[in-house]
Amino acid sequence: MELYTYYRSTSSYRLRIALALKQLDYQALPVNLLKGEQRQAAFLALNPQGRVPALRIDSGELLVQSPAIIEYLEEVYPQPALLPAAPVLRAQARGVAALIGCDVHPLHNVSVLNQLRALGHDDSQVNAWIGHWITQGLAAVEQLIGDTGFCFGDAPGLADVYLIPQLYAAERFNIDLSGWPRIRRVAALAEAHDAFVQAHPSRQPDTP
Amino acid sequence: MELYTYYRSTSSYRLRIALALKQLDYQALPVNLLKGEQRQAAFLALNPQGRVPALRIDSGELLVQSPAIIEYLEEVYPQPALLPAAPVLRAQARGVAALIGCDVHPLHNVSVLNQLRALGHDDSQVNAWIGHWITQGLAAVEQLIGDTGFCFGDAPGLADVYLIPQLYAAERFNIDLSGWPRIRRVAALAEAHDAFVQAHPSRQPDTP
Repeated sequence: MELYTYYRSTSSYRLRIALALKQLDYQALPVNLLKGEQRQAAFLALNPQGRVPALRIDSGELLVQSPAIIEYLEEVYPQPALLPAAPVLRAQARGVAALIGCDVHPLHNVSVLNQLRALGHDDSQVNAWIGHWITQGLAAVEQLIGDTGFCFGDAPGLADVYLIPQLYAAERFNIDLSGWPRIRRVAALAEAHDAFVQAHPSRQPDTP
Repeated sequence: MELYTYYRSTSSYRLRIALALKQLDYQALPVNLLKGEQRQAAFLALNPQGRVPALRIDSGELLVQSPAIIEYLEEVYPQPALLPAAPVLRAQARGVAALIGCDVHPLHNVSVLNQLRALGHDDSQVNAWIGHWITQGLAAVEQLIGDTGFCFGDAPGLADVYLIPQLYAAERFNIDLSGWPRIRRVAALAEAHDAFVQAHPSRQPDTP
């Protein structure tokens, strides 16, 4: 498999964790978002949305959108499972994933911040915007996840795959995590877990 | 089942279509987003994120986040299927759903527009913001969906469940759809399809 990725992209990081948890090998094909490589014709011909991540699977198809790709991996490489077996528990884990993937991360990705700057907002206003959405989202996540272990149980799963990259962004933007002990507990477990370490932005081929 | 819903909420509309396609009955419990009922203590005690939709299933649990709830419905009520059987095709449909659910709709929901107004932007700037994201997203969707029928095939599926409410928002915000013939073809099919008609914002118990 080939992964179009950017070291610091939240959704690329998310997908790298899923691949690492399932111990799937891939070749990283870095796309430099700061240089605008995602908007160049060659990349747009592959993914008309001009975004990373995108995953070329061994049969040749290019899959886009991290939520869709992660569900694909779960279906084709079911072990270790990222989702529990019971539908209600699956919905709880997917609910936290969607909260982060729809209502937090999209509000602070590169394209949105560029658009805010184009509207004349300075760094302090942009940072306040970022802080608003991350804080509101993580406060809800804190109430939705469990009291021990990872987000939902002893093994990392889908919600953790979404949460840990969101925490990386939160720290980058100086969000205070101290009021969320459950989230900090999950963060500490992930820091000691090989798949999360391997997928971290500090350890990618395109890390500066 | 009980559905916390708001007639004009894009993600509530999405879930109503999925319920209608699967011919599942529910009682609608309207939450008036314009009056801020989603932020009242009674509702926050149910859903800490303070958002609709939320679905109370017959066993009593409250499920949140439309992408998670729709996957739950697909697992528990598999017929008629919203997703095809082959993993790659499932990933394509989920990719379009995620593009709309993550990269378009969250950028123009009520809370984001309120935040833009709080930053001092007037209606024309807010409308330009909305137009930017919807246009960029739908232009990519146009390239990702198929040449005949609904988004992917003769029967409506997951991508249509996401696309049609997004088109309702696009029309509300005066986005020009004329350059996207595939999208307009899907819209015309949905207009004549009972489940989409039934779920439409103009026909809900809380429609003014």
